[in-house]
Amino acid sequence: MIKVTLAGTGGTMPLKNRWLSSCMLFTEGHAILIDCGEGTQIALKLAGCKSKPIDTICITHFHADHISGLPGLLLTMSNEGRVDPVTITGPVGLTRYVRALCMIAPNLTFPVQCVEYDKEHPVVLSHKIEITPFPVRHSVACLGYRFELKRSGKFLPEKARANQVPLKLWSSLQNGNTEILDGKQYTPDMVLGEPRKGLTIVYATDTRPTDRITRHAEEADLLICEGMFGSPEKLPRAKESGHMLFSEAAAIASEARVKRLWLTHYSPSLEFPEEELSFARSIFTASECGFDGKSEELDFPE
Amino acid sequence: MIKVTLAGTGGTMPLKNRWLSSCMLFTEGHAILIDCGEGTQIALKLAGCKSKPIDTICITHFHADHISGLPGLLLTMSNEGRVDPVTITGPVGLTRYVRALCMIAPNLTFPVQCVEYDKEHPVVLSHKIEITPFPVRHSVACLGYRFELKRSGKFLPEKARANQVPLKLWSSLQNGNTEILDGKQYTPDMVLGEPRKGLTIVYATDTRPTDRITRHAEEADLLICEGMFGSPEKLPRAKESGHMLFSEAAAIASEARVKRLWLTHYSPSLEFPEEELSFARSIFTASECGFDGKSEELDFPE
Repeated sequence: MIKVTLAGTGGTMPLKNRWLSSCMLFTEGHAILIDCGEGTQIALKLAGCKSKPIDTICITHFHADHISGLPGLLLTMSNEGRVDPVTITGPVGLTRYVRALCMIAPNLTFPVQCVEYDKEHPVVLSHKIEITPFPVRHSVACLGYRFELKRSGKFLPEKARANQVPLKLWSSLQNGNTEILDGKQYTPDMVLGEPRKGLTIVYATDTRPTDRITRHAEEADLLICEGMFGSPEKLPRAKESGHMLFSEAAAIASEARVKRLWLTHYSPSLEFPEEELSFARSIFTASECGFDGKSEELDFPE
Repeated sequence: MIKVTLAGTGGTMPLKNRWLSSCMLFTEGHAILIDCGEGTQIALKLAGCKSKPIDTICITHFHADHISGLPGLLLTMSNEGRVDPVTITGPVGLTRYVRALCMIAPNLTFPVQCVEYDKEHPVVLSHKIEITPFPVRHSVACLGYRFELKRSGKFLPEKARANQVPLKLWSSLQNGNTEILDGKQYTPDMVLGEPRKGLTIVYATDTRPTDRITRHAEEADLLICEGMFGSPEKLPRAKESGHMLFSEAAAIASEARVKRLWLTHYSPSLEFPEEELSFARSIFTASECGFDGKSEELDFPE
C-alpha cells in the first residue's frame, strides 16, 4: 500500500489559497516527500502529514518554488527531535544548493545525505522500494521520479516443500530474506512464485512532454503530472516557460496506459482547474484535478 | 503618517494559524519590510500589503524563521515586474547569506543592495526617514531597528519674510529643499520653526532585555517587541533560548516611556497570547497583543 497525498498543487508562487506543489508518499515505514517549496511544512500539517518521519526528500529542481522550504522543514524536523538520517535526492549540484540553503539551518539534530542524480542507479530505500529519477525537459536541469513498491511472488507451500525448505524458514524467506541453515543457503525464490506487478507512481512537474516521461510512466498505477495551463490557447506560454497543458499531460497518460492521472502544478492564473478538466478528460478519461490535501491509499491490484 | 502592519507574529516555525513574525511599514512612498520568514509573502497578501513596492528589507538575524522567505519574496516581486532597486539591511555577514539564498532566485528583474550593520551610520532612506539598527542580545548576532519619520518645524511666514525669502521659494523650502536664487542660498531653516518630535517605531525581536533597547525606544510612539512567552514560569526557557517574557517587554516599554507596546514573536506553545496579556498590562498598561494582520496608521501628535 502507498498512501499518496498532494500537500500543494501550485506553481511559481504560493498563493493565499494554494500551496506550492509537493507530494508525500507513505509506504513500508518510509515517508518520502517530493519537493519542498515555501510553506510546504505548513501544507503538510494541513494535509495531516507529519514532518518528523520524512526520511527521503526528492527534489525535482532548484527553482525556489520547489526547494525554498527545505531549510525551514529540516529545522522543524530538528525541533521535533528527529535523529535518524534524511536522504535528499536531486539533480547534479544538489549538494551545493542544500549546503547554501542550510546556512540558515545549522545544527540539525540528524545527518543529511545528498544523492545527486546518477543515471545508472536508482535510489533503493529497501528491497521493496525503488526510486528512479529521470531527466525531464524544463528551462533548467529537472528530474521526474518513478516510485515502485515491488511485490514479491505469491507464497507457494508446495514449492517450499519441493525445495526441502525447513518449515521454520518459510516466513523469513517469504519476507524476502535469504537464510543459511546447517551450511545450506535458502533464498526467497525457493518459496515464492513469479514476482507480481508492483505499485508504481510517477511524478513529473516542470517539464514539457517528453518520451522519457511516457516510458517511465508505462502502465503506472498513478501519474501525477504537471498541468500548468488548461486551455489550448496557452500553448505558446507553456512552450516558452517549459510547462504543459492539461491535454499534453493527458496524452502522456493515454500513451503510457497509466491507470489514473492527477494534474498538479497549476499556474497562479489558473484559478479553477476543475473548470478546464475536460481538456484532459477528452483525451484520457481517468484524469483528475489534484488539489491541496488530495489523498488516497493505493493498493496492489487484486 | 506611518502605516504599520504585522504580517505575522509567530516565532520558531510557521503554524497552520500563525505566520512567522514580520512587519511592514508604509511611509512617505517607502515600503519597509522587517524580516521575511517562510510564508511571509503569503502573510503579506493576507494582510493586504503588496510586495512589489517593498524597497527596503530589514533583517534582524539569520535564523531561518526570519529570512527563509527572502528568495521567494524577491522572485515574486520580480514576477510582478519590479525594476527599482531593493536595499536589504542586516547584521554583518548579510551579503554572504543573501548570496547563498539567492542561488534559488537568480535573474531578478531589479538590483539588490546589501547594507551590513555599521554602528556609526543609520540607514537614511530620505531626508525624512532614518532607520537605526542596533545590536540586541540573542544566541547569534541580531539587530533591533528604530524607524524615525522626522518632522520639520512649523512653517512660519513671518520668519520667511524676516529672512527676505522670495515668495516663490517658500513651498520648496518648506518641503526641506535648499534653493539658490540670484546667487544667494536659501535653506529650510529660514522659513521653519524648531524641528518637532517625529514619529518613532522600534522593533525588537529575538532578544533578552537589554538597556540598548530601552535607550533606542525612549519615548517611541510604538514599541513592537517580542514576547515569546507569557507566564513568568517560562523565565528559564526564555533565558536559555535568548527570548523574553511578556513582563520583560512591558518593563522595557515602561522604562522607555513609549506610548504603546505591541507584543509579537510568540512561541508555538503560546496558543492564546490574549489570555496572558495581563502579565504585560500589570506592568505597562498600554500593552497590546499583536496578531497576524494587525494594522494601524500612526500620525504625528497634534
